[in-house]
Amino acid sequence: MSAMQIDRLIEAIERTGNPTALGLDTRVEYLPPSMLNELKREDNTIEEALFAFNCGLIDALADVVPCIKVQVAYYEMLGVAGMKLFRDTLLYAEKKGMIVIADVKRNDIGSTAETYAAAYLQDNAFLGTPFFSDFVTINAYFGADGVAPFLSACEKNGKGVFILVRTSNPSAGEFQDLIIRDDEGGARPLYEHVGLKVAQWGEILMGRNHYSSVGAVVGATWPDEGKKLRNLLPHVFFLVPGYGVQGAMAQDLTGYFDPQGRGAIVNASRSLLCAHKKRKTNDFVAAARDEALRMRDDLRAAIPQL
Amino acid sequence: MSAMQIDRLIEAIERTGNPTALGLDTRVEYLPPSMLNELKREDNTIEEALFAFNCGLIDALADVVPCIKVQVAYYEMLGVAGMKLFRDTLLYAEKKGMIVIADVKRNDIGSTAETYAAAYLQDNAFLGTPFFSDFVTINAYFGADGVAPFLSACEKNGKGVFILVRTSNPSAGEFQDLIIRDDEGGARPLYEHVGLKVAQWGEILMGRNHYSSVGAVVGATWPDEGKKLRNLLPHVFFLVPGYGVQGAMAQDLTGYFDPQGRGAIVNASRSLLCAHKKRKTNDFVAAARDEALRMRDDLRAAIPQL
Repeated sequence: MSAMQIDRLIEAIERTGNPTALGLDTRVEYLPPSMLNELKREDNTIEEALFAFNCGLIDALADVVPCIKVQVAYYEMLGVAGMKLFRDTLLYAEKKGMIVIADVKRNDIGSTAETYAAAYLQDNAFLGTPFFSDFVTINAYFGADGVAPFLSACEKNGKGVFILVRTSNPSAGEFQDLIIRDDEGGARPLYEHVGLKVAQWGEILMGRNHYSSVGAVVGATWPDEGKKLRNLLPHVFFLVPGYGVQGAMAQDLTGYFDPQGRGAIVNASRSLLCAHKKRKTNDFVAAARDEALRMRDDLRAAIPQL
Repeated sequence: MSAMQIDRLIEAIERTGNPTALGLDTRVEYLPPSMLNELKREDNTIEEALFAFNCGLIDALADVVPCIKVQVAYYEMLGVAGMKLFRDTLLYAEKKGMIVIADVKRNDIGSTAETYAAAYLQDNAFLGTPFFSDFVTINAYFGADGVAPFLSACEKNGKGVFILVRTSNPSAGEFQDLIIRDDEGGARPLYEHVGLKVAQWGEILMGRNHYSSVGAVVGATWPDEGKKLRNLLPHVFFLVPGYGVQGAMAQDLTGYFDPQGRGAIVNASRSLLCAHKKRKTNDFVAAARDEALRMRDDLRAAIPQL
């Protein structure tokens, strides 16, 4: 029996005292002017420049930020070379000791979901996991048999998933807030219904910290829903996107954590990647580190148990 | 204003008299023994062998099957080299005049969905669409603003999407059948609710055949639901997976078509890819062609308007 991946994440958060993830949604436009100029002058490819940027950030933050989340869409947009950059970024972060979340939101029927699980959640980074990760994000619209292959891979290989429950975007509620009534006259929005299934699916993957390796994506932009879900799902760990540029602040996030200051990891992407722009410097590494420490302290001030 | 992609699909179906798609969910295990033996003897990579297999099928079927659907999961499982194979397969089918569906089921918040749209739905196969396709499949759990960037790309570049409404897998109903009640006392399952949104989103992309380039995925394994959706959504074209190995037969599919024999394209993957196994031959090309013609005639017998 492998150790539970969720415990590794919780321990990494406690070691750094920082429940945040660096979101590497890297775009060429985010590079500092000095790197863009160099890119024009030299024979480097865009992917080489982006890899240097990603590695610079990972090197600068690996001792203070426990986790990296890599959004695959920004790499798919660059085609085959982008997928190589995606793979190399995941592996580089893993080598530097960070917990690695591949933010891919994959979903399909069982036989195909099994194939996705093989792409991301095999157990060995060096003997051929195509895209190494510790956790992947998935969408549950297919129901249990589209999720089961990911859970089997988690069980077998000591991995984890975060399942979309309540997303961070403005129209999240369009389907997620639809009210489902049960036979006993109770009523719940769809996202709570999905959340309860996530809790049930996660029972087989419970860690020693009483959280499951089957977690939920709960957007930072919905503090009321986040708090309700925290109470409803005491053993489901939350991946919380939407801090910073999407609008959420630390005081919005207190309800996502349990009374011990556990239960959530907050992702920031653009606010870290583009910190150098706000500070008008080419030193993106120092700017991102400053911003990451500011974000950590901001969360600590709002959530004293951290 | 670009021509509507859905009209190109409908015309290709009518030219061939065959509302089916070849699903290239290609796996090494599907290669005929002769190719597997050659793979062991020669210096070819697995990806080269799979590409030869895919191209052989495309060459054999391009005059009788109007459309190809390529399930990306089987290529992601092979890592970066697999993504190159995916790209090359899409382009090869396009060059041979087939309509190309990238079955990726992507989904995310607006800014990220825009990035996925750039990966698949840019307007030019030769000036750098990372993964060329005419249509992509997407998941709508994020609501309108996760779908909008795909629709913009369709409008700008003459492309289309198929949005997951009712999936073909056994647990499809777990969330999709949950009953939503409206304020007027009406009640609909979630999948119909999603279907009605698909119809609404598609109004801006209506083609001259009165179908929209915003279509729906409706599994072949649910004939009652398929028939209900056909009546509910008269302008939404259906991509229908699940024929053959997943269990659906031609007579199950009559309700997915309109009275003119339009409105749906049926995908078959394993029954075509592995036709050579059933016929115990290495000639996978002839076996797949036989099976494709059998499937076409099977559908024509069940749906005389075709």
